[in-house]
Amino acid sequence: MAKLGVGVLGVGEMGKRHAENIRRLVPQARLVAIADVAADRARQVADELEVERSCKGLEELLECKDIDSVLIATPDKFHAEAVQKAAAAGKNILCEKPLATNIADAIAALKAVADAGVRLQIGFMRRYDPPYVAAMKRIEAGEIGEPVIFKSLGRDKDVPPLSAYESGVNGMLFYNNTIHDFDLARWLMRDEVAELQAYTTVAIRPQIAQYGDVVASLVNLKYRGGAIGNVESYVQSIYGYDVRTEIIGSKGSIFVGSLDKMPATFLSSGGGSKVLADHFLSRFYDAYLEEVRDFVDNILHDRPPRVTGEDGLRALEIAVAAENSHLNQEPVPVKTEVMPVARHSVAQGTRS
Amino acid sequence: MAKLGVGVLGVGEMGKRHAENIRRLVPQARLVAIADVAADRARQVADELEVERSCKGLEELLECKDIDSVLIATPDKFHAEAVQKAAAAGKNILCEKPLATNIADAIAALKAVADAGVRLQIGFMRRYDPPYVAAMKRIEAGEIGEPVIFKSLGRDKDVPPLSAYESGVNGMLFYNNTIHDFDLARWLMRDEVAELQAYTTVAIRPQIAQYGDVVASLVNLKYRGGAIGNVESYVQSIYGYDVRTEIIGSKGSIFVGSLDKMPATFLSSGGGSKVLADHFLSRFYDAYLEEVRDFVDNILHDRPPRVTGEDGLRALEIAVAAENSHLNQEPVPVKTEVMPVARHSVAQGTRS
Amino acid sequence: MAKLGVGVLGVGEMGKRHAENIRRLVPQARLVAIADVAADRARQVADELEVERSCKGLEELLECKDIDSVLIATPDKFHAEAVQKAAAAGKNILCEKPLATNIADAIAALKAVADAGVRLQIGFMRRYDPPYVAAMKRIEAGEIGEPVIFKSLGRDKDVPPLSAYESGVNGMLFYNNTIHDFDLARWLMRDEVAELQAYTTVAIRPQIAQYGDVVASLVNLKYRGGAIGNVESYVQSIYGYDVRTEIIGSKGSIFVGSLDKMPATFLSSGGGSKVLADHFLSRFYDAYLEEVRDFVDNILHDRPPRVTGEDGLRALEIAVAAENSHLNQEPVPVKTEVMPVARHSVAQGTRS
Amino acid sequence: MAKLGVGVLGVGEMGKRHAENIRRLVPQARLVAIADVAADRARQVADELEVERSCKGLEELLECKDIDSVLIATPDKFHAEAVQKAAAAGKNILCEKPLATNIADAIAALKAVADAGVRLQIGFMRRYDPPYVAAMKRIEAGEIGEPVIFKSLGRDKDVPPLSAYESGVNGMLFYNNTIHDFDLARWLMRDEVAELQAYTTVAIRPQIAQYGDVVASLVNLKYRGGAIGNVESYVQSIYGYDVRTEIIGSKGSIFVGSLDKMPATFLSSGGGSKVLADHFLSRFYDAYLEEVRDFVDNILHDRPPRVTGEDGLRALEIAVAAENSHLNQEPVPVKTEVMPVARHSVAQGTRS
Repeated sequence: MAKLGVGVLGVGEMGKRHAENIRRLVPQARLVAIADVAADRARQVADELEVERSCKGLEELLECKDIDSVLIATPDKFHAEAVQKAAAAGKNILCEKPLATNIADAIAALKAVADAGVRLQIGFMRRYDPPYVAAMKRIEAGEIGEPVIFKSLGRDKDVPPLSAYESGVNGMLFYNNTIHDFDLARWLMRDEVAELQAYTTVAIRPQIAQYGDVVASLVNLKYRGGAIGNVESYVQSIYGYDVRTEIIGSKGSIFVGSLDKMPATFLSSGGGSKVLADHFLSRFYDAYLEEVRDFVDNILHDRPPRVTGEDGLRALEIAVAAENSHLNQEPVPVKTEVMPVARHSVAQGTRS
Repeated sequence: MAKLGVGVLGVGEMGKRHAENIRRLVPQARLVAIADVAADRARQVADELEVERSCKGLEELLECKDIDSVLIATPDKFHAEAVQKAAAAGKNILCEKPLATNIADAIAALKAVADAGVRLQIGFMRRYDPPYVAAMKRIEAGEIGEPVIFKSLGRDKDVPPLSAYESGVNGMLFYNNTIHDFDLARWLMRDEVAELQAYTTVAIRPQIAQYGDVVASLVNLKYRGGAIGNVESYVQSIYGYDVRTEIIGSKGSIFVGSLDKMPATFLSSGGGSKVLADHFLSRFYDAYLEEVRDFVDNILHDRPPRVTGEDGLRALEIAVAAENSHLNQEPVPVKTEVMPVARHSVAQGTRS
Repeated sequence: MAKLGVGVLGVGEMGKRHAENIRRLVPQARLVAIADVAADRARQVADELEVERSCKGLEELLECKDIDSVLIATPDKFHAEAVQKAAAAGKNILCEKPLATNIADAIAALKAVADAGVRLQIGFMRRYDPPYVAAMKRIEAGEIGEPVIFKSLGRDKDVPPLSAYESGVNGMLFYNNTIHDFDLARWLMRDEVAELQAYTTVAIRPQIAQYGDVVASLVNLKYRGGAIGNVESYVQSIYGYDVRTEIIGSKGSIFVGSLDKMPATFLSSGGGSKVLADHFLSRFYDAYLEEVRDFVDNILHDRPPRVTGEDGLRALEIAVAAENSHLNQEPVPVKTEVMPVARHSVAQGTRS
Repeated sequence: MAKLGVGVLGVGEMGKRHAENIRRLVPQARLVAIADVAADRARQVADELEVERSCKGLEELLECKDIDSVLIATPDKFHAEAVQKAAAAGKNILCEKPLATNIADAIAALKAVADAGVRLQIGFMRRYDPPYVAAMKRIEAGEIGEPVIFKSLGRDKDVPPLSAYESGVNGMLFYNNTIHDFDLARWLMRDEVAELQAYTTVAIRPQIAQYGDVVASLVNLKYRGGAIGNVESYVQSIYGYDVRTEIIGSKGSIFVGSLDKMPATFLSSGGGSKVLADHFLSRFYDAYLEEVRDFVDNILHDRPPRVTGEDGLRALEIAVAAENSHLNQEPVPVKTEVMPVARHSVAQGTRS
């Protein structure tokens, strides 16, 4: 079977990891070219990974021969436009979360995807994480009975530098961080969020308020089917990177999460101590790899993506409602857009 | 030093434990009499604990000679009136939570206490639990920096029987369960809750709705000082009794809670398994004992109570706001009553 | 049912705990008198526990009216003689481990017990510890299949003071510490140790060698039925008191033990930390209480003791073999003495 | 810098993993050829990994151009001879443990290495495992004070098939399994084992006795410096793959090991349960990769190997003593051979 030609757009920390995975650990794919608006960076990563071509930005990348699929890992603000252009060029797409930082952009991107009849997968990699996968299997097997409560938290070790807030290239907390939990909130509960209410704080970083952003948030959720939920985000968890999710049902509960980075315990007169996890790239090592493998396999075997454009849209709608609740200080219903109709359905085949 | 004479009112599961503790493990106190509206039950517990006197209800108890203090462990609805009467009779009081099931009753009870110049301690026993005490010490020592987020959950193993809902002697979920977490929310954060928002569900027990009660709730909190919080309650956690609290600050986090009842792990081809905790009386064994010991010691040494009537009132005010948010489906500010003024201050001595 | 009259001999830390338990938490027993060679100490503990009588030593105790049973908690060296005298006086006996510090004394004590037809229980309280009890139930239910390997360790926080070594009132490490694990080695594996081999070290406390004692030991075990085992003892585990046991079988494994004293975890940039257990009296709180309750119940209901004099003898024989292996630097078979025959069997009734 | 040309000999489960790591995750190396006595298997793995050449056995491999280094992952019995031949051909060598299955073969292999002046690294990959590395750092920093006790255990999920015993290509338990712990026993304690004593059992697999092998062993250790240790091996741990090591010192203890495969806990009325680790290739994923990276880096930068031929010899000497103790049922001193002298020292440069 011929290898799938892939180009990667944006090789910051995240994009570089994707490029490494494709280059080294996905034998069914061939990493054809690496693109970045910083041409130097693209060149340097291409050299390091022994990839022949590097490009300055998306247009150059789309002109490369042999590219079937594009992986988009630019800053958040540029996701939707990149999806639009790649779709228009007939490429299959794996786009990092969020799909967009506002609903209009998301709809435009999804429309382009539908019109072009290409595949779009959104980078909610937690759905590929073995503990989350194991949890989902148990839920589907009915082991926890009816889901009643959804709880999730995501904590990042360090507040981003002020320059990140100034540039505004990433969406606020809800779009950049909490959106992972909003996706889990839908996926694991197999239901949609109907309404939510958010409290937020800038805590000891008041200077962040001027950028419309916050340091911590607690979003209370109400599901259509009657279940309830709560999602915490915090970007100054100086003890380490920390993700935990619990789904509580009528017959049991599943808790995903742990603070142990490695199995070593130190006992001294000061007590017992553990080494903690410190980075999302190590916690979700397997998930990022499985994600891109699944993306490639599904294209090669003509199967629909596991995480769809609609998943990207629905999580974004929750994030938008959360921002509105934050701004207006009241509970906000989650508005649901109609998915753009595909002129060519995926089932008819989308291989370029 | 003479022993403190104590009477216990109400010997259901909780009151009986208090009686046992006083009778056997608090040498500075003497359990003079046991009272219950069910005279048989009072007699039976008195026999079992080798206590001479048993009474049918509070009036009879208050007439007993040698009683300095009364421990009130009746159903919630009767707390406030019992406090009023015991105070009027000049007794010091340890009252189980909640102080009352509505604000008017609470104020009336506190007024009676103030007028009589007696001591009143509220049974928020978690403040005596060693892990919570250890957590509070670290917070006070500044180890987690500025508190930013408060999280707490309390899960009970079984939904109460329908008869408990029908009788209406206990307040709804917020007054009977969540109130513990509302107290922790104030105590550990050393701040007051300014506003809250609640989502609730009857889950798979729709018949409970007719009694105005719920099976699960998530209450989002906003503090006066800018911090935020969330409290979960669930009364159908069939895997066991489960209490966890986390206080997340700018320099670290403290997590209180564990699912291990005892230190035994079983490993088989089916995986590893642990035995879980099953009851609040075993989880908080030490706390209930320390609570009553401290109550007795403080009276004998003429020191003010550690958990005050005002603590009882403030937690109740949060519960009332939570119920209003549940009823009106909107965020609700927490209203703060003025504490009734004591005509005779405690500092002037209250020994009866 | 009349209460069982009990006297306690020896009220150091251990004996005082036993006395407290009997006085406060075993309603079926009455603590008649407290005895100690230090009459002052006996008086002081009696006062504190509100026990009427205190005695200077065993003889005085045995003359007390209303005493059916004697609990012996003197230093190890005096156990066997106290058992002999109490038996001769017709008392039932709960004797702290070890039964004796040499075989001849043990046999003499057991002979006296047999001749007098009284009951003797040995204080291997771990057999009453809920996690160990849970483990044993699973073993008996066949959940781990055939036992193949036995592992156990016991670590004490601090090397005893030099004065304890000088006085020589307690046996060396094997008799005072490891004997608990030797008892578990028999009980949990339901087999007898046939041979053993010991390595020992004085580690950084060379001054202890002059007293014939050691700071740490590892005893390799071979069972009659073919299984194998290893037992570690260490008396300078400065991080805390630590007991762990694992029974590994052909179908699974059971691990008893934990380092958590209380369910609180502290997370900071330095990592995660836990508070550790620090004392055997807190780790085995329940076990000590159940032990004495069971002792009292069995007498009142005319049932044989759960931990017998023979159990005391067999564990001692293993300890003697371990000391010989330590002295002669070679594997040593465990010699088995014949149990002294009872002239009056327990079944004929032994109530004094 | 030119890439290091590597050939892999033996592509069973272990050798294939090494080949994958070199091919995909060690950019500084080039996997030139794959060799196996089963030419089909060599071909198949070469195809899968997109390696050009495959060879039938070592001779053919050594004739390949561009090969600087050989990784040996044959069955144990063939290690020593392969080392001899590869050394004679001037290749640097990474040899899986054990170096040999008897002392004479080991010495012959080391002599060949010394004569040829090539590098030899032994595959004790645990020295590269992050938890073990973290433990070693703390030990070297003096955090546990003087090491007093060494404990280690290794459990494999399934007894090997009878055919593996019949073929005799691997050494008995001590050479194939325990040797990892013997290496840790030296490395982490920074001392040499002076004497040992072993108990063994065939447990419920008596048919294994005819091959001179056992199912479980406990080896008691005595160090030159006075410390003591114990090592357990068990090959029928049906609940999963399990490796734990503890180093107990005068100021603290370090415990390496955990039974959690992934951070997911399931809570139900049956208790809490965890998913367990099941395979050495997943537990030591990082270690195997770091091992081969370090091997390649050291050659490219002309640095001596981190795990030396002498390390291979010393661990083997302990295994031989353990087998003798098993056979003769007595403690056995560990005999130390003189290391063969290198005619050309490594420091003079060994690049082929």
